[in-house]
Amino acid sequence: MKILVTAFDPFGGEKINPALEAVKLMKDEIVGAEVVKLMVPTVFRKSIDKAVKAIEKENPDAVLCVGQAGGRFDLSPERVAINMDDSRIEDNEGNQPIDEPIYKDGDSAYFSTLPIKAIVKEIREGGLPASVSNTAGTFVCNHLMYGVLYHIAKNEKNIRGGFIHVPFTPEQVVNRLTPSPYMSAEDIARGLELAVKAIVENEEDISEIGGKIH
Amino acid sequence: MKILVTAFDPFGGEKINPALEAVKLMKDEIVGAEVVKLMVPTVFRKSIDKAVKAIEKENPDAVLCVGQAGGRFDLSPERVAINMDDSRIEDNEGNQPIDEPIYKDGDSAYFSTLPIKAIVKEIREGGLPASVSNTAGTFVCNHLMYGVLYHIAKNEKNIRGGFIHVPFTPEQVVNRLTPSPYMSAEDIARGLELAVKAIVENEEDISEIGGKIH
Amino acid sequence: MKILVTAFDPFGGEKINPALEAVKLMKDEIVGAEVVKLMVPTVFRKSIDKAVKAIEKENPDAVLCVGQAGGRFDLSPERVAINMDDSRIEDNEGNQPIDEPIYKDGDSAYFSTLPIKAIVKEIREGGLPASVSNTAGTFVCNHLMYGVLYHIAKNEKNIRGGFIHVPFTPEQVVNRLTPSPYMSAEDIARGLELAVKAIVENEEDISEIGGKIH
Amino acid sequence: MKILVTAFDPFGGEKINPALEAVKLMKDEIVGAEVVKLMVPTVFRKSIDKAVKAIEKENPDAVLCVGQAGGRFDLSPERVAINMDDSRIEDNEGNQPIDEPIYKDGDSAYFSTLPIKAIVKEIREGGLPASVSNTAGTFVCNHLMYGVLYHIAKNEKNIRGGFIHVPFTPEQVVNRLTPSPYMSAEDIARGLELAVKAIVENEEDISEIGGKIH
Repeated sequence: MKILVTAFDPFGGEKINPALEAVKLMKDEIVGAEVVKLMVPTVFRKSIDKAVKAIEKENPDAVLCVGQAGGRFDLSPERVAINMDDSRIEDNEGNQPIDEPIYKDGDSAYFSTLPIKAIVKEIREGGLPASVSNTAGTFVCNHLMYGVLYHIAKNEKNIRGGFIHVPFTPEQVVNRLTPSPYMSAEDIARGLELAVKAIVENEEDISEIGGKIH
Repeated sequence: MKILVTAFDPFGGEKINPALEAVKLMKDEIVGAEVVKLMVPTVFRKSIDKAVKAIEKENPDAVLCVGQAGGRFDLSPERVAINMDDSRIEDNEGNQPIDEPIYKDGDSAYFSTLPIKAIVKEIREGGLPASVSNTAGTFVCNHLMYGVLYHIAKNEKNIRGGFIHVPFTPEQVVNRLTPSPYMSAEDIARGLELAVKAIVENEEDISEIGGKIH
Repeated sequence: MKILVTAFDPFGGEKINPALEAVKLMKDEIVGAEVVKLMVPTVFRKSIDKAVKAIEKENPDAVLCVGQAGGRFDLSPERVAINMDDSRIEDNEGNQPIDEPIYKDGDSAYFSTLPIKAIVKEIREGGLPASVSNTAGTFVCNHLMYGVLYHIAKNEKNIRGGFIHVPFTPEQVVNRLTPSPYMSAEDIARGLELAVKAIVENEEDISEIGGKIH
Repeated sequence: MKILVTAFDPFGGEKINPALEAVKLMKDEIVGAEVVKLMVPTVFRKSIDKAVKAIEKENPDAVLCVGQAGGRFDLSPERVAINMDDSRIEDNEGNQPIDEPIYKDGDSAYFSTLPIKAIVKEIREGGLPASVSNTAGTFVCNHLMYGVLYHIAKNEKNIRGGFIHVPFTPEQVVNRLTPSPYMSAEDIARGLELAVKAIVENEEDISEIGGKIH
């Protein structure tokens, strides 16, 4: 089995992107599956283009996109990507779309085809906090997740795809005035390896309580 | 113009539902529009059934569903409802669906057709905190919003619809061990009246920054 | 009985001070006690000077100082003032002492002589969140509380004294990027009236669980 | 130089105490100073007794007490201990004092004689979040810090003393319903080593902005 793992470059004034730092630390083989790593730019469209090219080239069994969610407390696989760009800040090339659909012929949303409940269970059993998230936001993270799932759906490919958000690392919060949660890059990397393990070992997701009231 | 405003009864062990308390306090006429109030049960399916019956009977120009979001800091109009029930707790009749679609023939998601950015702007200009939310959760709130928008879409009705979440009231957090934000019922009611005003005065939404990074 | 209630003017870039707004809204007589209101400047030394002058002039039975605690969730009577100025920001006249004692001949700390547990109980029974705080910080709030209690102790006056912190009002948090808790000015005023009621009715404090683990 | 480092055993239903786990991981020699480690029970009086006995036996140059502060985001050296036991929960032997002084002949408070600003600076330069705290609570942590400083003051010993609080570890928050911050045990241990380094290298504290507004 082959898993393509993507991570964004730093954005929003940050010097690092914890997703990228952690993906670099991940093993290249996990429970027998090959891990192919790819850095994508935090830029609308270009992030999708680069990921789609890698999908075409590598023909992986699954795609796991990883992004920074500053302010979140845990590792959070995303349930759904929505057909909407609504940018609070400029991306790394100055784009800032407001309330625009990503693909006019796309579904209103695509659900993750990764086993998100199994991923949460695996990570938590490894001693790290995790939970299902029901929004990937409306910036480049949601955009990439939507674009990858759109591409897979439109081309009827037999590839599973999804996204996982990760917290800041400690270095990123040292100088913040407002307290912010964080996770060490080593722990994020370990959590991502457990996520890949869950992907490899669960073709179908498990049934577990894990929704949110709001 | 006629606006149907729905609110849930109390759930999750709470003695009151701030949505219901606040809707009761709302004026019956706002900038010339008639406000019709409806209590719906915090029960899967039955909440949709009751709202749809009222839509059939009242034939309103817009439907604004209101629900409690304990732990949220502000009034948050929802951008999107997803085709997924995933219940963390039992509803008021003991139902607890896990990862089930709401309507098998429904879209993966429906976007709010209320002017969510205009609502946020109007409430904030009135001195109360508000922001667009990109997830209504996976419990009965998302369920009702999805069901109302599904019904409107399937029947090709010329009705706008959407959802707004409101915080706890002060009474609800007095005995909590963990600090929780809240808003007074009077302020919630005033915020909801401003939301109705924005709905009446904005047939189309405005273009404002208001997305979320994640 | 006569209660002197002080409130600071706005500081730290805020347009209002919720303590001042709320104190203005308080009744002038509460359970038979006269309430004398005093605005003090958010300035080291001058705040103490103005409060002490009012104490000399009014000879109240108790002094309740009120200040803004942006970021706190509830009304929090302070347990103790420490003999330390350590200013994170400049006060309203540009002073910024770092790690300096307030009075060289003062105790390391003075405990509130107001019935803080009774105040919390009274406010919570009134439906508003409240808890005992064990730090008034190291800015002008702690400075004033310490100064008032130092003055009373050194002059062996039969006056009770203490401090209560109050959250932001909704208007203050509308434009913040980071979510912040708040309480309406009307509710803050009502909470302060309940605090005065508790002061009038409890010469000695009650014994209730209300400490903090850290 | 010799530094006595104490850590509590688990309390409050937790299976581990992150302070104890991290202290176990600390090196036994830091920048030339010997580190002597001591576990103390989370019990009023007995914690002080055990620490005082170790001080008598080891005659250290400084005492650094370490405790768990569940819910805090960073490593926080305490500025001050107050003469007050006010227990929200029972200690590990069922004691729960309410509003009682720790020593009737003690000062109202004792300030840390460790270089708290230098400790914060050293830890932050090491890439970990840290800040000065102005309250150690009113449970056994404050009790021990007060007791150690009282003992040193009463016996006119030339020993510096103080306390540092540490967050939960990831394992402790995995099953919490409410999100909670955490730090890995390895990072806590590294932060504590940096704290000891700051103690060894700073006989006097440095002057840095680091107070709190409230």
